[in-house]
Amino acid sequence: MSLASLFGVELPIVQAPMAGVQLHALALAVSNAGGLGSLPCAMLDPAALGRELAALAGGTRHPFNVNFFVHVPPAQDAAREATWRAALAPYYAEFGVDAHAIAAGPGRQPFTKEVADVLDAIRPAVVSFHFGLPDPGLVARVKSWGSKVISSATTVDEARWLERHGVDAVIAQGIEAGGHRGMFLTGDLTTQVGTLALVPQVVRAVRVPVIAAGGIADGRGVAAALTLGASGVQIGTGFLATAESNASAPHRAALASPGARVTVLTRLFSGRHGRSIANGFTREMASAEAEVPAYPLQNALMLPIRRAAAASGNPDRLNLWSGQAAALTRPRAAAEYLETLVREAGEALARRDG
Amino acid sequence: MSLASLFGVELPIVQAPMAGVQLHALALAVSNAGGLGSLPCAMLDPAALGRELAALAGGTRHPFNVNFFVHVPPAQDAAREATWRAALAPYYAEFGVDAHAIAAGPGRQPFTKEVADVLDAIRPAVVSFHFGLPDPGLVARVKSWGSKVISSATTVDEARWLERHGVDAVIAQGIEAGGHRGMFLTGDLTTQVGTLALVPQVVRAVRVPVIAAGGIADGRGVAAALTLGASGVQIGTGFLATAESNASAPHRAALASPGARVTVLTRLFSGRHGRSIANGFTREMASAEAEVPAYPLQNALMLPIRRAAAASGNPDRLNLWSGQAAALTRPRAAAEYLETLVREAGEALARRDG
Repeated sequence: MSLASLFGVELPIVQAPMAGVQLHALALAVSNAGGLGSLPCAMLDPAALGRELAALAGGTRHPFNVNFFVHVPPAQDAAREATWRAALAPYYAEFGVDAHAIAAGPGRQPFTKEVADVLDAIRPAVVSFHFGLPDPGLVARVKSWGSKVISSATTVDEARWLERHGVDAVIAQGIEAGGHRGMFLTGDLTTQVGTLALVPQVVRAVRVPVIAAGGIADGRGVAAALTLGASGVQIGTGFLATAESNASAPHRAALASPGARVTVLTRLFSGRHGRSIANGFTREMASAEAEVPAYPLQNALMLPIRRAAAASGNPDRLNLWSGQAAALTRPRAAAEYLETLVREAGEALARRDG
Repeated sequence: MSLASLFGVELPIVQAPMAGVQLHALALAVSNAGGLGSLPCAMLDPAALGRELAALAGGTRHPFNVNFFVHVPPAQDAAREATWRAALAPYYAEFGVDAHAIAAGPGRQPFTKEVADVLDAIRPAVVSFHFGLPDPGLVARVKSWGSKVISSATTVDEARWLERHGVDAVIAQGIEAGGHRGMFLTGDLTTQVGTLALVPQVVRAVRVPVIAAGGIADGRGVAAALTLGASGVQIGTGFLATAESNASAPHRAALASPGARVTVLTRLFSGRHGRSIANGFTREMASAEAEVPAYPLQNALMLPIRRAAAASGNPDRLNLWSGQAAALTRPRAAAEYLETLVREAGEALARRDG
């Protein structure tokens, strides 16, 4: 089944949900232009979730996607947390952050029954998950609404696991992708492969449609992904550069700079591996990578620094999420970007066939 | 200009030169079937080089490629070498290798005037280099024969450098690729990106034809690479699995096993970063990665272990070079593999256009 008919959209292009750097405005712009816009909910409290969902549902009659993290909350580790609070003390001081005001504890919660209750009133066309899937009962409830369920696989094993657990499509996330890696059956980076190698292997391994993600930012990449057997693509960094994202000024400047060519997979910003443009913080703290508290504990410790850095325009203390194809992007409206992707993809196919 | 007309071949498919695991037999099979076969010369002494070139030139009227490493020989580092001889002592003992018989010194030489003298009699259609280019005088001499000169770029900067220094085509080597990474302007792995992200960036950056390499092992990958704007592809692992390679039995078994899904970029086997299937040696020695002597010093120290391991069928002491798409390959004749690539590529295009 084509992605367009599965999701009821015109274009086989999913805007990747990007927690912390976009809200409903980007999702609306993409859905109203024929793609599948996505609302990332991982960093929304219940009040914000309600507001964002209402704005999204009220702003379009087109299908959209609502995304949740489904991490397993880790056990507290007071010793490790204390070590990290000490390590971060100079950074807290740099921005005048009151470290005592940062709550201990597991921080943000994964997808729960309470969130499902809120979603029930909206029943989005698509609900996507990252880091696996919620409990089977919650998956069944989401599917009972007629919503399609999708999630990210970074390996063939994860793709097969997701299919067995009932997803309607698998997002094959290659190593090029920016932001958090969706890995959930493994924590071993040596299992993580490039999109060009991953997509054909996943296409062979599962029967559900495959959405290619990672390193795709122009129409040639879209056309190549479809050629690999994907039914569609998911694009993050390209949409991060558009006018409708909430990327901060230093984040936008970093994406447009030659420095965007050097990205790192790091746990430093959140406790889970995410791809960020290398900056002062990732270099200064690189040797502490192995000792980072688990997600979302580290996330809670880092948020005040990340927010203050964004507000003060300091790219060296900020999580500069980016995939490996930032050089292929440029600032513009999301609808114009979508239109360009479609035109370029058509040109790539025509040129290649000629 | 199309790759076919640039090289005078029928198919835009280059068989990657794979030093140590293939000789003229594979190159002949590929060239005689319409691709560009390659002879890797990095591990050949002058006598073997003469024999292999004669067998290749005498075995085909089709174009072929002859490949050389152009590393800069490192300074000796007696202390580091002594440390490593000690670290490897248990492995030498395991195979009854006489460690005292292993010569110190820089080991194999890069492309030199003497090698060019030998090549002059053959004047291959294509001469490819890895780790940059030889001296401008040597490049000019090769080009004066009418031979086309190509080399690998792992970054946009390397692609631009190669174009400025006169290559006729650039091989864009993505992170998925097996064996030695061609990086020569940088030693920093965080600059290395996936093929899907690299190829469109290189295509935009240079005017010479681009050959996509890394993670391509089936016809879908070939079609996708051409869609990205590449003029052709270079395939290693897929040809390593064919009958005409010299891959050892344990290497072939590893390529066909689920273990091939986990590969590592390691300097342990040679002193330069190469992608190998993870095995006992890479796991046992992982923590010593940063202390490995430079290429080819480490290569000399490791060769007796690697050769004894291959001979005795032990995959845990062997450099199991592989890209990230070994799961897409299977044993067969090289000509049959080429034929399948072409058929599958055509099907991928037809399916996608339909």
